[in-house]
Amino acid sequence: MKVLIDLCVVPLGVGVSVSKYVAVCEKIISDAGLKSNLHANGTNIEGDWDDVFAAIKRCHEVIHEMDAPRIFTSLRVNTRIDKEQSLQDKIDSVKTKRGDS
Amino acid sequence: MKVLIDLCVVPLGVGVSVSKYVAVCEKIISDAGLKSNLHANGTNIEGDWDDVFAAIKRCHEVIHEMDAPRIFTSLRVNTRIDKEQSLQDKIDSVKTKRGDS
Amino acid sequence: MKVLIDLCVVPLGVGVSVSKYVAVCEKIISDAGLKSNLHANGTNIEGDWDDVFAAIKRCHEVIHEMDAPRIFTSLRVNTRIDKEQSLQDKIDSVKTKRGDS
Amino acid sequence: MKVLIDLCVVPLGVGVSVSKYVAVCEKIISDAGLKSNLHANGTNIEGDWDDVFAAIKRCHEVIHEMDAPRIFTSLRVNTRIDKEQSLQDKIDSVKTKRGDS
Repeated sequence: MKVLIDLCVVPLGVGVSVSKYVAVCEKIISDAGLKSNLHANGTNIEGDWDDVFAAIKRCHEVIHEMDAPRIFTSLRVNTRIDKEQSLQDKIDSVKTKRGDS
Repeated sequence: MKVLIDLCVVPLGVGVSVSKYVAVCEKIISDAGLKSNLHANGTNIEGDWDDVFAAIKRCHEVIHEMDAPRIFTSLRVNTRIDKEQSLQDKIDSVKTKRGDS
Repeated sequence: MKVLIDLCVVPLGVGVSVSKYVAVCEKIISDAGLKSNLHANGTNIEGDWDDVFAAIKRCHEVIHEMDAPRIFTSLRVNTRIDKEQSLQDKIDSVKTKRGDS
Repeated sequence: MKVLIDLCVVPLGVGVSVSKYVAVCEKIISDAGLKSNLHANGTNIEGDWDDVFAAIKRCHEVIHEMDAPRIFTSLRVNTRIDKEQSLQDKIDSVKTKRGDS
């Protein structure tokens, strides 16, 4: 089952800056061979359900190993069986509707 | 790795009522032997990471089999390594702070 | 416009324990005369759109005044115009479907 | 109070395609003079708290007027008082940490 995910990881107990941890997650996702796109409030990921969630679990494990005692993660999870849809398809679909061409 | 999850599953393309699908998820979670609590906007689940995410995957699979072409799920995922904490502990902690006793 | 909200406030830069801040939010919501229910991963709130969002803004203001330099809040926002629905109605609807009676 | 928001609006009871509604929200946000960026699972918005939430309320009102009986919105809300931070700053901060230059 293919899944499109929006991942936002917030480590707690490590001060206000979380970008160091997000950068590590980016690497884990990339090393897993998953397509992803960073945005200002998270990372969109595209792939097989098991692969994507294995990468997210790895993010939690590594961030705890780094030093974060607690992690709060917010996820949006999209699956559909009526058609194939990529992350780019979702953006293109909105752009077409608003008349970008 | 233990995880506390807040799961909110929204099937699309099946009309406005989603309670039938939430009820099915409740059964899947319960059958998996996981502790959970239904609330007005989701279901809190407590358990081992792999068991909890296997149940969530099963929810997506079954809801698609029922008839939903598309599913949007919103998750809050909490892990911590500084101490053991249950769903009830989290509620008790707030109640103590606000002086319920 | 009536709204049902699931609010989860996570202050950053104040250590791992956030229950003190959640307790303050509970009081702000209650003082605003809004119906709410605490659960393990957030607080469900029911009320008029403007009243509910004024209370959420007040939560951010007060938590910053307390000492938190940064706040990450996760919200689920439900509106519907086809029927009246309360927080309790949502729970009852699922319970009926799963056959609790 | 400045806020950075990640907005994901999901209308229910209108079939599986939601891009038409997202495009309308994009226009509402743009007409409100707010900076925003569309991504595959939402729209990041930057602005004053009251302006941003007024635009989100308007999105709900207009989508209901279009035909959607029910709307489920997922929001990530970021405020901070320790420093000024834009949507682009957040992305740049992660890119610097992962060594993009």
